[in-house]
Amino acid sequence: MIAIIFLHLVRIKNIFNNMFESKIQIRVRYAEADRMGFVYYGNYAAYFEVARVEALRQMGITYKEMEDRGILLPVLDYSVKFIKPAGYDDLLTIKTVIPEMPQARIKFEYETTNENNILINKANTTLVFINKETMKPCPAPEYFLSHIREYFE
Amino acid sequence: MIAIIFLHLVRIKNIFNNMFESKIQIRVRYAEADRMGFVYYGNYAAYFEVARVEALRQMGITYKEMEDRGILLPVLDYSVKFIKPAGYDDLLTIKTVIPEMPQARIKFEYETTNENNILINKANTTLVFINKETMKPCPAPEYFLSHIREYFE
Amino acid sequence: MIAIIFLHLVRIKNIFNNMFESKIQIRVRYAEADRMGFVYYGNYAAYFEVARVEALRQMGITYKEMEDRGILLPVLDYSVKFIKPAGYDDLLTIKTVIPEMPQARIKFEYETTNENNILINKANTTLVFINKETMKPCPAPEYFLSHIREYFE
Amino acid sequence: MIAIIFLHLVRIKNIFNNMFESKIQIRVRYAEADRMGFVYYGNYAAYFEVARVEALRQMGITYKEMEDRGILLPVLDYSVKFIKPAGYDDLLTIKTVIPEMPQARIKFEYETTNENNILINKANTTLVFINKETMKPCPAPEYFLSHIREYFE
Repeated sequence: MIAIIFLHLVRIKNIFNNMFESKIQIRVRYAEADRMGFVYYGNYAAYFEVARVEALRQMGITYKEMEDRGILLPVLDYSVKFIKPAGYDDLLTIKTVIPEMPQARIKFEYETTNENNILINKANTTLVFINKETMKPCPAPEYFLSHIREYFE
Repeated sequence: MIAIIFLHLVRIKNIFNNMFESKIQIRVRYAEADRMGFVYYGNYAAYFEVARVEALRQMGITYKEMEDRGILLPVLDYSVKFIKPAGYDDLLTIKTVIPEMPQARIKFEYETTNENNILINKANTTLVFINKETMKPCPAPEYFLSHIREYFE
Repeated sequence: MIAIIFLHLVRIKNIFNNMFESKIQIRVRYAEADRMGFVYYGNYAAYFEVARVEALRQMGITYKEMEDRGILLPVLDYSVKFIKPAGYDDLLTIKTVIPEMPQARIKFEYETTNENNILINKANTTLVFINKETMKPCPAPEYFLSHIREYFE
Repeated sequence: MIAIIFLHLVRIKNIFNNMFESKIQIRVRYAEADRMGFVYYGNYAAYFEVARVEALRQMGITYKEMEDRGILLPVLDYSVKFIKPAGYDDLLTIKTVIPEMPQARIKFEYETTNENNILINKANTTLVFINKETMKPCPAPEYFLSHIREYFE
């Protein structure tokens, strides 16, 4: 048994700038490349979602559990700048940064690079904590904040 | 205002063979074609789901309402034979047949053709009625059967 | 045979503000709603692609033909603000605006509303004309501009 | 740096039955679960494509390279039986078997299990070697067969 694809996270607590940073790797699936042979522009949103869920998992937070406990985290805004195309079977690295301590909202910034360390795109999302019962915004739950706080002190 | 894409249903009550038949048209999206320039084989499942939901709507059944009332209809098996490729921007016609009166399960058969009436593929699915509370199979609800019965008499 | 879903385009030449505007309708597929029951945030990119391709078709431009003639039109940047969620089976209207005469780049602005005329989201994309041979940016081809020019005079 | 998700392959040359077997693990993405909270039935096709591409890579064959050299491998038929649902964030294992030495066609069989070793589904696909120039079926290329032959002797 050998590990052929490593999806790993780099956990960095930058002592100079308070923030959290992690990395994952994603292999582009055939389904995700388009007629030009490039990753369809719409498919990066799912990659970034994997990137932020794994970033949270790295901090000890399982997004699914939070949702099962009644807190949803939908996306409020999403913005992406495409710099170079990525192609089928490329092994992409996505670096995810939480640039500031979350309050009622949480921001994520992403940078995608390929195996040659070429920058593919830069993106950011803002998500908002929503109470599943009321469907209204709510503060980030304490169990979420308790895991994340150490990176911003 | 002009109609440029017609998604229409043909409702046929075949008086010789009891069955229900409907047709829809779907324009292939850029996101759905792959690196070969053809519709990715995995994307037909979503087309067939649109085809069967519109077939049910044609009979007066809104699948969403049934699900909201507590009856799920997940797919038990799915099988597809690919005959010719379809490409980006092709306007496909999917013919859906309910070959027999549903009981605890419902079968759908599909045929996809392109604008030149070339047969693209043939497929079939079996779905099962599930009670959302118990997550166990259940008989088809009466409001479902009442809409469908006339086609099988 | 009855038309049950109309995907129609409204073609407006605003005589006060030079711009092009069109509308399409898209029914949300089961595959496109997520665990929250809402359209997955990543799926709107494909809707906007359908919206802009149909907007171009309305002006007499078939995007596929342009690509087959050797001009690609990849997305340079994409930004979306989510205002209200859309759900499974919702019939969404996407209004597409080309706000200015395209040069080497073309901008599209989008607004999605549901059947109750609730604003779901606002988005914009910038696309760039690329020569397929050289994979370098190029001016918009004349046959493209000739169709689009009348809306900006 | 720690590895948090292992996508590994188990390479088995069964000395009693000539065949090739490999395993990969896939974490279900949010985008891939539907309104029921389960993996949308159409999304398994992309999982199985990842499974067979990684199975080939394990034998020394990069599918992308073969395609770049002019041999396509489209799916001829695909069949799947769903046994239990899988949900968002589940870590699925897909076992892929090549049951017989490929000729003009290659068969793959798949079994998906979850972390509790519950069988989720069973599927199979037949793919055909196609010459990209002629778009006609062709024999499997020798460099493909040379990598695969040892498992069937």
